[in-house]
Parts: sequence; structure tokens; C-alpha cells
Amino acid sequence: LIEGLRRRAARLRKNPAVTTGIGDDCAVLRIPAGHELLVTTDLSVEGTHFRRDWHAPGVVGHRCLTRGLSDIAAMGGEPLAAFLSLALPPKLPQDWVAGFVRGLMKLAAQFRVTLAGGDTSASIEGITADIVVIGSVPQGEALLRSGARPGDRIYVTGDLGGSAAAIARLLKRPRSKLRAAEYPQHFRPQPRLAIGKWLRQRGLASAMIDISDGLSTDLGHLCEESSVGAEVWGEAIPLATVGRPRRQVELPPALHGGDDYELLFTVPDETPVPKQIAGVKITEIGEITGAKQRWIVHHGLRSELREQGWEHFTR
Amino acid sequence: LIEGLRRRAARLRKNPAVTTGIGDDCAVLRIPAGHELLVTTDLSVEGTHFRRDWHAPGVVGHRCLTRGLSDIAAMGGEPLAAFLSLALPPKLPQDWVAGFVRGLMKLAAQFRVTLAGGDTSASIEGITADIVVIGSVPQGEALLRSGARPGDRIYVTGDLGGSAAAIARLLKRPRSKLRAAEYPQHFRPQPRLAIGKWLRQRGLASAMIDISDGLSTDLGHLCEESSVGAEVWGEAIPLATVGRPRRQVELPPALHGGDDYELLFTVPDETPVPKQIAGVKITEIGEITGAKQRWIVHHGLRSELREQGWEHFTR
Repeated sequence: LIEGLRRRAARLRKNPAVTTGIGDDCAVLRIPAGHELLVTTDLSVEGTHFRRDWHAPGVVGHRCLTRGLSDIAAMGGEPLAAFLSLALPPKLPQDWVAGFVRGLMKLAAQFRVTLAGGDTSASIEGITADIVVIGSVPQGEALLRSGARPGDRIYVTGDLGGSAAAIARLLKRPRSKLRAAEYPQHFRPQPRLAIGKWLRQRGLASAMIDISDGLSTDLGHLCEESSVGAEVWGEAIPLATVGRPRRQVELPPALHGGDDYELLFTVPDETPVPKQIAGVKITEIGEITGAKQRWIVHHGLRSELREQGWEHFTR
Repeated sequence: LIEGLRRRAARLRKNPAVTTGIGDDCAVLRIPAGHELLVTTDLSVEGTHFRRDWHAPGVVGHRCLTRGLSDIAAMGGEPLAAFLSLALPPKLPQDWVAGFVRGLMKLAAQFRVTLAGGDTSASIEGITADIVVIGSVPQGEALLRSGARPGDRIYVTGDLGGSAAAIARLLKRPRSKLRAAEYPQHFRPQPRLAIGKWLRQRGLASAMIDISDGLSTDLGHLCEESSVGAEVWGEAIPLATVGRPRRQVELPPALHGGDDYELLFTVPDETPVPKQIAGVKITEIGEITGAKQRWIVHHGLRSELREQGWEHFTR
């Protein structure tokens, strides 16, 4: 397997940051001068993050790397290299692994990320993939969760709830197959790297996080790290359009559904923010407050916005 | 769990390289000027790398981090930060996780490694831990596997076969408990960071690798990457002393047994090498040759040294 990854990695355009890749005790990377290093690790576990009967291997590979790239995007960074550790059950068809790696590598090539190492092992049961992504950002410029201030406006990229809608549909009809084209946010989520970089370069955002656990939970993380509160406007939340015939998701999956991999960021009041960045819609959904509670105002009613984020589908 | 790790990580003396640790989308690290980055990832999977009935949780945590630190040692690097991803089965006692983390953190503190992030998830069955260690090395000075040249002498640190002897004993009597003090190489392996750094600083070694898969396999990796062969002297191989009463292991576990985490390195001929480095015995065991085969000479007989490295105990 490592040999296969190595051959495949060798064919890709290499990221020049990687001076020694697969084949030594460690990978050796050269970080651009004046830059800091970003490191993120994300598990993709069978039964928790994916099911083999619901997700094609290429989709699992794509989603696995998206988790890591999205974290780099949320810091305003640029990805350099990825490391993949795979624990695989004894009876797993070789085809499955090949498809997984193809899906992952396709996304890696798109963002010029070198697969620079990893590990493989037998598991007792079930597939566990751990993806590590290394990125860089000019020193001191990483967009943290902790920079939001009262009065800042809250923005999100794209639409929310599309991935949760796919899960809800799969849970309701476990034997049905969904078309990836009808639920793109679930099957082919796009890490918002260009938007993260754009915001960082222009110094626009005061804080940023990616929505991997759901808006209510991730806004909670951002508020906690910034020691602030928030008020979100229910009618403003951009709802994903999914399925066939296409229809908008309801508010709850958009508020609480995870795995959308959109960005949530805050911008000081009166700073103009474009309606689109890198071709993706940007929507203002609320504001940061001084009191530490989080509220949602919907149909004129103000209620507490509780964290009801992403409970994975096995729990 | 993440909260627990975070509190525990906060109590440790932080490595100054980590500017943002657990609690954001990514960790942010500052690599010393003029240094390159080292990255290694290693899986520790229940049933393959450890068994709960054989290994106390603290031992599993210690061994898990040793795998990563040993890779940093093998490059002559210094470790900065670790990232831990844990997939845990639903019924795992909380005590087990606490013991695992204690064992890992104790070793981390010893080498001033900051636990700077990670991920946790439910698994279907069995514990999977993936450890990522980030280190640094002055630019261009990393000790690679590829630098060995014909005529170079081959050295190893410490004694070999002690870990394989423990596994052999456990396989023979699966219900017996072994004392860690009688099989220290297996239960408390020491990453040879001081030796790796010493060799790198003095520019003594032409190539280096850690012995995680067994001498025959890891010498094979080094020879392949260097496009050379090797001749090893059977009588010179330092055999570990284990058990009670204490006795030396046989040659086969020392040649083929894995998980010793000693270093194997090559040094140009006629360069003097001390008998001890950082308090650990150094033994010359053979030489690098131009022909690409690998041989062992033992009791006057010359035979091919086949890679019979570490087959983990479930296979």
C-alpha cells in the first residue's frame, strides 16, 4: 500500500516545501521564510464519519482530506503537505483502498498538496483514517478563533445544512442510494481555501472557524475563545438546496448540522464585505455581542441558541 | 477527553515553538530560523501493536509516543510538538484512556514535547491511536537513510531483541503477566534522541534509521535508499538481556525482532566512534558494501540476510 501511495505521490506535481517525502523515518519540509506552521489532524472512522454502503470509497477519501484542508482554510493558511494513517480490516477489498486513495489524491492535486508520509496497519474491525495536513501562514497573521469583538458582524460562506440533509435522508431510508450531484455539500464538500486566504491577505476578518460541527456549536467555540456572545438572525441563514426535485433545507439542519465545511468569520462593523469571494456567496447572519450568551432571533422571537451540533450518525 | 488533554497539556512546560495549541482549527508552530521541519506519523492499533490484557494503558501510551520520537531521533532532529488522534470503542473504561494519556504525557514532558492537538472519535471496535510528532533540524542537516557509501561501518545503539523476546514469551503463555522491569525494551523503550542529535551535530553518521521493524528489515530499507549492500557480523550483534533469571536473547529475535527503537547508523571507515554516546553502548556490527545484496557472517558461514522483520503478533 505504501508503495502504491509512493508511486502515486511521485506522479503528482510536488509541493516545493517537501524536500524529503515518503521513504525516510520522517518527511522533511521547508517552511517559507517568515512563515509559521499550521498543523491539523482529523479522524474519519467507519460507522461514525462514513458508512461503506452509503459512501463510495472516492467520496470517503475526498471528505477525509477536506476535513484537514478546511481547518487550514479557517486559519487563512495555505496547505503544503498531507500525511495519511490508515488502519484497515483484514477482509477489506483492495479496490476499496485504491478508490479511497484516488478520491483523496484528486483533491490533493487540486490544491497542490503533497502526500508526504503516513502509516498503515491492520485493524480488528472497521476502517480508521487519520489525515494530517501541514500548512503555512505569514508569521502572526493566522486567523484565530479568539479575535472577535462586540459589534463585529458575523458572516458565513456558501449555504448551510446540505450535508445534514443528506444524512437525514440516509437515516430515513438506509438502503437508498443518494446521487452525489443532488447532495454536493455532503459528497463533494469544497474546502474554502481561496476565501480563507483572501480574508487573511486583506486583514478583513477578526476571527474565523470552519463549520464542521454545525453552526450553533462552531459559533459557540468562536465565542468562547473570544469571550463574547452573539445574536444570529434566523431569516438570514443561507439554506442549502438539495435533492430532486430541489428544495431548500429547513432551518434546524442549517443551524445544527455538521460537515458543511463552510467558513464562519467575523468582521468589524462598517467594514464593507463583498457579496461574493472567490465565486462563493458571502452572507451576513448576525453580530457579536458583549454579553456571553448566544441568541437566535427568528420570526420576531429571541431564543437561546443552544449548541446542538453534529452528533454523528451512529450515536 | 479533549478538555482533559487540554488541561493536562496546559500544566506541562510548553515548548516555545508552539504559539497556538489545542483550541483552534489548527495548531500554530514557529520553527527556529534556518531549520527544516520533520514530520512523522505512527499508528498504534489494538490487536496489532498492543493487547489490553498484555499491556497496561500507560505502557501503550509510552510506546505510542516512542514510535514517533524514535523517528525524529533517526533524523538527528529535536521534537517540538505531538498530535494525538484516538478512535475509541464505546465500552472502553474512562480509566483506560486516563492511564494511556498519563503514560504518553510523562514521556512528552521528559523530552519537552507539547501536545498541541489531535482528534477523538468513536470506533466500532478496538482502540486506534495515531501519533504525529513534529520536530526540527538545521536546514540540510537531517540524517537520511540514503547517505551510506561502500566501506562505511555499521553501528547500532543499545541491545537488540529484547522487545521480540517479550512478545515471544507472551505468545507462548498468553495469560501470564510480564514485569516491565524484566523486559524494559518492550515496556519502556527509550527514544534515542540524545544520540541522534549528538551524531548530527558532529557530522559523524552518513546515514541513519531507527530499528522499528527489525534489524534485517530496517538495514534493508537503509541499503535500498542508499543503493548499497551490507555485511553484518553475527557475533558482533549486541543481544538484549531479559527475564528472570536474566538471560541473553538468541540471535534471531535480535536480527528480525521489531520495536526495539534503537538506532542503526553508518559512519565512514576510519572515523573513530566512541564506545558510548549519551550513556548508551554503541556497537560496530558490520560494513556497507557496493554489491546490493545483504549478508550475515556467523560462525564462519556467510548467508544471505533476508528481511524477516516484524510481523506483528496477530498475523
